[in-house]
Amino acid sequence: MDEAVLQSVRIILVEPAGPLNVGSVARVMKNMGLTQLVLVQPHCQPSDPQAQQMAVHAQSVLEQATIVNSLPEALTGCQRAIATTGRDRAAGPAPEPPETALPWLLDSGLSGPTALIFGPEDRGLSNAELNYAQRTLTIPTSDIYPSLNLAQAVGICAYLLRRSLAQPAALAGAPMPAATPDLAPLDQIEAMLRQLELLLLEIGYLYPHTAPSRMEKFRWLLHRSRTSQQELAMLRGILRQLDWVLQTKRGES
Amino acid sequence: MDEAVLQSVRIILVEPAGPLNVGSVARVMKNMGLTQLVLVQPHCQPSDPQAQQMAVHAQSVLEQATIVNSLPEALTGCQRAIATTGRDRAAGPAPEPPETALPWLLDSGLSGPTALIFGPEDRGLSNAELNYAQRTLTIPTSDIYPSLNLAQAVGICAYLLRRSLAQPAALAGAPMPAATPDLAPLDQIEAMLRQLELLLLEIGYLYPHTAPSRMEKFRWLLHRSRTSQQELAMLRGILRQLDWVLQTKRGES
Repeated sequence: MDEAVLQSVRIILVEPAGPLNVGSVARVMKNMGLTQLVLVQPHCQPSDPQAQQMAVHAQSVLEQATIVNSLPEALTGCQRAIATTGRDRAAGPAPEPPETALPWLLDSGLSGPTALIFGPEDRGLSNAELNYAQRTLTIPTSDIYPSLNLAQAVGICAYLLRRSLAQPAALAGAPMPAATPDLAPLDQIEAMLRQLELLLLEIGYLYPHTAPSRMEKFRWLLHRSRTSQQELAMLRGILRQLDWVLQTKRGES
Repeated sequence: MDEAVLQSVRIILVEPAGPLNVGSVARVMKNMGLTQLVLVQPHCQPSDPQAQQMAVHAQSVLEQATIVNSLPEALTGCQRAIATTGRDRAAGPAPEPPETALPWLLDSGLSGPTALIFGPEDRGLSNAELNYAQRTLTIPTSDIYPSLNLAQAVGICAYLLRRSLAQPAALAGAPMPAATPDLAPLDQIEAMLRQLELLLLEIGYLYPHTAPSRMEKFRWLLHRSRTSQQELAMLRGILRQLDWVLQTKRGES
């Protein structure tokens, strides 16, 4: 595979706090052939002199970095996303090792960008943030001191992404069952889930306090099934029709 | 192999200049289970506050670091050494990729320590220094910006050292997150699909002649996601609630 595919991978940092880290991330991204950096509500600016200094010859990555207000915004248009976490999740699918998960971001059949998400230095990604991705990965470490520096975590993943192009069979095995050719973009899945949530609240199946945990379960189900665009369109069609029927009845009664 | 073998690998930094780098190296070493740090004529001290700050919970690695005057001294007692370089050598064997070279440092039959050598930030290891090691490695990078930060280079090698202990099976991993333990029985899925079909006919989303092909698409989606019993119960709960709401409205109108 051509290494140009690396440029379709967005590196998303959620609320990074350290300009040294952001600069180091930019440098190692460019070292490994990655170019798209997205910062979600950063606590430091890419123009910070410390970030610029650590980036050395990768200041272009900082200059072209996108700053957004939310993780869903950062994922706009992405077909596939992997979130990184330092721990096992209480619920949801278990995190995979990076060698297994990362090649999935480089499928040459994909038409849109993909994303790899890293959490803030102090707390990592929350469960709610992890749920925006279809898969999660954990970098294996010593149990004695498992907490990796953010830029090191990005560096290891960026290296493994690059290497998975060189030896996909050796490093990755067969990571996924046959890919859905027209996988639904994540933002469309989120839009459908919001539509579903409103309907379920209206019919009294959900209550505001139970809605978030229940909606998480639907999200897992859809992510696991690798829902296609066509299937998503079908689900949204049903929701629209239900809405219409319920509104008509509302008008009648 | 036991991960204790990692503690017999010395990480040797020749003339490191940046305390941030030395601190970051200590941290990622401890993250990966490495403990022996040797500094050859360092231009900064491990007690430097910046080094201490970057080490976070790996200050023990800095405190126990050995400072020596020459590379041969740093290699005292080592049976095997690998030197890292960012470029092809004019003479001598060509550098290997880290995945090939590094496992050689962890041979359980060795009685003494082994070493992995990194050069100064600005110039890397000289040919004379490279020659102290039996083997050399180069971390593959983009041609556009091949110069890795020192701590990133150590981080990637430390990660790969640790991972070379893992069984090949663990690296390949399972292609999918663990199978759903309470997979829904097929007859329950069929029952739910019949329930859904009736509802979709009632609300006018399906027509009798389009129903079978449409329902097949739902079946595929559910099968692909390996729907659990709990999830199926959730879906049936929604259908029941919708039915109830629609019947109530029917009664009203």
